[in-house]
Amino acid sequence: MAASSAFSLSQALLSRSVPHYGSTQHSDRLVLSGFSLSSFSGSKTVRHSFSRPSTPRRVSTIRAAAVETLEKTDVALVEKSVNTIRFLAIDAVEKANSGHPGLPMGCAPMGHILYDEVMRYNPKNPFWFNRDRFVLSAGHGCMLQYALLHLAGYDSVLEEDLKSFRQWGSKTPGHPENFETIGIEVTTGPLGQGIANAVGLALAEKHLAARYNKPGNEIVDHYTYVILGDGCQMEGVSNEACSLAGHWGLGKLIAFYDDNHISIDGDTEIAFTESVDKRFEGLGWHIIWVKNGNTGYDEIRAAIKEAKAVKDKPTLIKVTTTIGYGSPNKANSYSVHGSALGAKEVDATRKNLGWPYEPFHVPEDVKKHWSRHVPKGAALEAEWNAKFAEYEKKYKEEAAELKSISSGELPAGWEKALPTYTPESPADATRNLSQQCLNALVKVLPGLLGGSADLASSNMTLLKMFGDFQKDTPEERNVRFGVREHGMGAICNGIALHSPGLIPYCATFFVFTDYMRGAMRISALCEAGVIYVMTHDSIGLGEDGPTHQPIEHLASFRAMPNILMLRPADGNETAGAYKVAVLNRKRPSILALSRQKLPQLPGTSIEGVEKGGYIISDNSSGNKPDVILIGTGSELEIAAKAGDELRKGGKTVRVVSFISWELFDEQSAEYKESVLPAAVSARVSIEAGSTFGWGKIVGSAGKAIGIDRFGASAPAGKNIQRVWINSGCCN
Amino acid sequence: MAASSAFSLSQALLSRSVPHYGSTQHSDRLVLSGFSLSSFSGSKTVRHSFSRPSTPRRVSTIRAAAVETLEKTDVALVEKSVNTIRFLAIDAVEKANSGHPGLPMGCAPMGHILYDEVMRYNPKNPFWFNRDRFVLSAGHGCMLQYALLHLAGYDSVLEEDLKSFRQWGSKTPGHPENFETIGIEVTTGPLGQGIANAVGLALAEKHLAARYNKPGNEIVDHYTYVILGDGCQMEGVSNEACSLAGHWGLGKLIAFYDDNHISIDGDTEIAFTESVDKRFEGLGWHIIWVKNGNTGYDEIRAAIKEAKAVKDKPTLIKVTTTIGYGSPNKANSYSVHGSALGAKEVDATRKNLGWPYEPFHVPEDVKKHWSRHVPKGAALEAEWNAKFAEYEKKYKEEAAELKSISSGELPAGWEKALPTYTPESPADATRNLSQQCLNALVKVLPGLLGGSADLASSNMTLLKMFGDFQKDTPEERNVRFGVREHGMGAICNGIALHSPGLIPYCATFFVFTDYMRGAMRISALCEAGVIYVMTHDSIGLGEDGPTHQPIEHLASFRAMPNILMLRPADGNETAGAYKVAVLNRKRPSILALSRQKLPQLPGTSIEGVEKGGYIISDNSSGNKPDVILIGTGSELEIAAKAGDELRKGGKTVRVVSFISWELFDEQSAEYKESVLPAAVSARVSIEAGSTFGWGKIVGSAGKAIGIDRFGASAPAGKNIQRVWINSGCCN
Repeated sequence: MAASSAFSLSQALLSRSVPHYGSTQHSDRLVLSGFSLSSFSGSKTVRHSFSRPSTPRRVSTIRAAAVETLEKTDVALVEKSVNTIRFLAIDAVEKANSGHPGLPMGCAPMGHILYDEVMRYNPKNPFWFNRDRFVLSAGHGCMLQYALLHLAGYDSVLEEDLKSFRQWGSKTPGHPENFETIGIEVTTGPLGQGIANAVGLALAEKHLAARYNKPGNEIVDHYTYVILGDGCQMEGVSNEACSLAGHWGLGKLIAFYDDNHISIDGDTEIAFTESVDKRFEGLGWHIIWVKNGNTGYDEIRAAIKEAKAVKDKPTLIKVTTTIGYGSPNKANSYSVHGSALGAKEVDATRKNLGWPYEPFHVPEDVKKHWSRHVPKGAALEAEWNAKFAEYEKKYKEEAAELKSISSGELPAGWEKALPTYTPESPADATRNLSQQCLNALVKVLPGLLGGSADLASSNMTLLKMFGDFQKDTPEERNVRFGVREHGMGAICNGIALHSPGLIPYCATFFVFTDYMRGAMRISALCEAGVIYVMTHDSIGLGEDGPTHQPIEHLASFRAMPNILMLRPADGNETAGAYKVAVLNRKRPSILALSRQKLPQLPGTSIEGVEKGGYIISDNSSGNKPDVILIGTGSELEIAAKAGDELRKGGKTVRVVSFISWELFDEQSAEYKESVLPAAVSARVSIEAGSTFGWGKIVGSAGKAIGIDRFGASAPAGKNIQRVWINSGCCN
Repeated sequence: MAASSAFSLSQALLSRSVPHYGSTQHSDRLVLSGFSLSSFSGSKTVRHSFSRPSTPRRVSTIRAAAVETLEKTDVALVEKSVNTIRFLAIDAVEKANSGHPGLPMGCAPMGHILYDEVMRYNPKNPFWFNRDRFVLSAGHGCMLQYALLHLAGYDSVLEEDLKSFRQWGSKTPGHPENFETIGIEVTTGPLGQGIANAVGLALAEKHLAARYNKPGNEIVDHYTYVILGDGCQMEGVSNEACSLAGHWGLGKLIAFYDDNHISIDGDTEIAFTESVDKRFEGLGWHIIWVKNGNTGYDEIRAAIKEAKAVKDKPTLIKVTTTIGYGSPNKANSYSVHGSALGAKEVDATRKNLGWPYEPFHVPEDVKKHWSRHVPKGAALEAEWNAKFAEYEKKYKEEAAELKSISSGELPAGWEKALPTYTPESPADATRNLSQQCLNALVKVLPGLLGGSADLASSNMTLLKMFGDFQKDTPEERNVRFGVREHGMGAICNGIALHSPGLIPYCATFFVFTDYMRGAMRISALCEAGVIYVMTHDSIGLGEDGPTHQPIEHLASFRAMPNILMLRPADGNETAGAYKVAVLNRKRPSILALSRQKLPQLPGTSIEGVEKGGYIISDNSSGNKPDVILIGTGSELEIAAKAGDELRKGGKTVRVVSFISWELFDEQSAEYKESVLPAAVSARVSIEAGSTFGWGKIVGSAGKAIGIDRFGASAPAGKNIQRVWINSGCCN
């Protein structure tokens, strides 16, 4: 293995001396030779890279079986299957008159080999725990994946679904969406997210394998495959995630880079002339170049074998393809990227590729060939189930944990681990209280793991009983993301979507959610219950100044669908926020936490938090206070103090903690009226952030106190208060 | 030059055979040898890289003078100056008991050489157009830059300013802020932004030089220097921007990578083990490694010379330093990164570096040495002014344009170029109308340039009379950013801050502002009047589905300080939005534009847009309509139609376009009352986005119609309407 992994790029390229074929021919000269070494120039390096991986016997047997199936496959049938994929994509895009035919036409060969020859999955149970994961990072090419799922026998993509591509209510939306289409692992489309999700999936596999595999019983053992394009490669988030993948040595991550030289604006020459190979070499990946991705089936197969043999590095297989392969007039141009070919060009492509069939037709022999995946998948899962049963007998505790992780069923009574506080408990920053919660929860939640973007000691996210998840210590649960917020978020999405019981958390300063908002929105959309631990949540952070002081961030997330924005005020509320966050496995949570110390307030509670908004003190009766003071986070204390003052002056005052607008919104009308009675219009909110949005809560007669300008660099005491009390910033 | 630029990394490293010194010694063994070639091992490659750049004679003279000054400098004095910088940083952080002493202590040598020996600037006119630009991308180390500005004679950083580091109202905030401290070029702190800003500054120089330089009169000719750290290197935005810098061949961009192996969480080994050298080689940069950044002054000088000689590639000088150099107990550890040393360690450091002075003391000889920069800077500027006078005589038109660009004074009557429309003008998508505006404006605004993140043909941002800004055609004004939204925004900040008359615009789908929000917030904070052309601004984009459909984005930007969120409804409003955007040179603008066709509405106007909200139709009198309908963008048409219907039913209805909340907020109370009279509580807003925030406008009795859930993939007609009319999404 060492010899193989030590390949330099140039050696790897030299070793790719597999004969290949003209990229514009779909040649019948191809002779499928399976995996016998004799078909390759037997150079030393090739021999090394093709030596059998030292995986355990049982797993190897399954793989060998897969290889045998391959060898019987007739090349014409492969070609026919590949063209079936191409035309399903062409026809669906044509019918919708919308979509991206270019990528599926170019990537059909690698797609075919992955789903038909390489990947292990069970079409009738797409959630089988130990399945290989596939991510189409270049999500616009989703018809490739829909065609593959259809051929493989997934019930989620039937012929009628292909025919309703991109239509209202269909299972085949314009980009892959895991929450719409069973069999899709993650939601892609925004470029670069998918490859970063895949890093998270591969991290999850490496982590769980390290924790649960036993000698002779590798219960966790799958690969993560990705297809990414030029667009993904240009995005910074992919570089961040791939740098981590290299650092962590995610050997079971195999990424196909669809090197087609075309993006929406035309040839990539106009904006993308870097050497991706060299960059990935720098990132610590193994690199293989398949020069003919259009018809070089053997090259693709050999590359996958080589990639699997390199166990200490992720592999990038650069597959040079022709976008829109087969279209005589549009291939290799941007015009085939994101538009239907048009009836005339569809006809020309049918002629060119020798495809006599009606739209959406799957030839019988292709159908028959693919039909084996249903029994095969069932067998794979049955075999794994038997293995697990055996495992469970020997390793009861581990099996229970793994079941919890794979099912998402939380261990009974887990919430009892949450700390509680009294007003006498010492004042503390909610970031510290958050660390107490994390360290309490990690003892009862086997799926909890995470870390910070190089701010662990500021975000207070270290799990004290664990070490660092690293290349050689993947069983540990502190993940060190480096200064890579966007990659961190997208990796956490991948972890969360690997198994329903994995609960990733990640952390940075709240203001830097701006760097990772792309991933956070996908968390919300794809129903990944990531916990975002966001500290330094206001100008209260002090000297670092306005670049580090969030203002509009609370509002900006309250406006985002399907995400919980929680701003706890003290220990009980922090514990409550964690309870909510852990329970919401299909909705991400953001915890905005203070840098500064805050007192433990009377009246706060975990139960209160669960309602989003609740009364912490009140001296009125009949649900008719003179005034309602509403605070969140560090300003709940101010609201409480102001309430005390007003009461001394004879007023009846209700103080409300409004920790989560979303949760409050979900309460019954009665409950809402009991907290914010319509008849009481004297309402004042106080929050060290933008007043934007508070108008709805305090009403036309109320007042929202906040900060609608940028902060300033100054110590967090008296001085900084000038920003928001004295500088005319309050509405 | 070719020979030099063709260096491979390994050759470059081999050529760095300059003798260097132990990193923990501040040795007096150093003998400063100036730039004579004899001090280097005279290998062929070194000779090549040190050959004089083929810049024109006049410029070369100035540089030669600078080099001569150098040669007279005595090494002990350099060391003393470097230690002055170190202790100014140590003392300021200590007094504030807050800040980052580690970077200034490690980077003082490169800082000294840049500001004292290499850079051309005028301390008494920090805005001198042709100055070299310096960016501290690792902004937390800002005391380095404050110390340098102080020594160089900038009035913005006096001794009292150093003493009030990080205090309320000081000119020395916790991170460099161009709007607080004259002499700071851009606002940094959020990592990776600075290097990307620097790419923008270097782009601006290359572009303006190509447009305005004449044979024998290179009126635009400066370098852009950056210091970036490990944190910047990890951020995706820096990879995006650096990929473009390599692509564009920005030879006058010279970046110092402070390779100190420490970030907040500890040794970079825990999260950052990639080969930065190889990555940058892949990105097309020239790479030089200075192994001893602590005391290797000659190495640093030689590296800069070599970097200048490579004209077709940007250069990364990896400078290996010791963070906190000089601190006997804290150097080379994370504890010196972001905290004051503490009195005891400050004393120990004083002893260790032989520094007998009081805090904030600048020794007389150091002061005297630096004092030459005031006359020298004045002379440099005077020389340039004379050159410009000469230029102006010969090239009147070009000189006028360049003056407009360097002063920010817009050409008289520019706004007359804006197109106007009547209700009879054809319906069109506002993205197309935007392109009409851009193409009209580029004829009258010499500083307008920009482009899209690989969506030019969707965002409709191409300037038809220009070609692409590329390595060999830098005079052109269409910038091709590739799929790099975050880098694009940060580069545009750099362009905008290069010269007040440069007006960069950049474009992507509105939803992908999530990828670039970090840069957009910095635009707002640092007063960079970037124009963000954001198309596909609602679920109206159709089939691409929820990953591409903005929902919360309007609200999220309305909550952000100092940014204009504009959502025009038709041609006149699009023209008005551009008028506002161009006029707001210290406030960025976001234009949310439709993919779909919209009619030209009666009543819309450029003047109306300037007020943010205005009446487009009304059949009431006495400022008392029965109902006020408020719409923005594509929904203004719906509001107008609903108004017509209601009027048919006998109601008095006012229809208001609410294109920019920020502009409306700035109007007089009288004007606001004339549009939204307090007495009229029957108000309905309609906008295809989150209703968040509308409560304040429509009031407790009003109704906000919008979309508070994610969209869906379906054609943009009837089907998509289901998302927001029929699916219970409206509040």
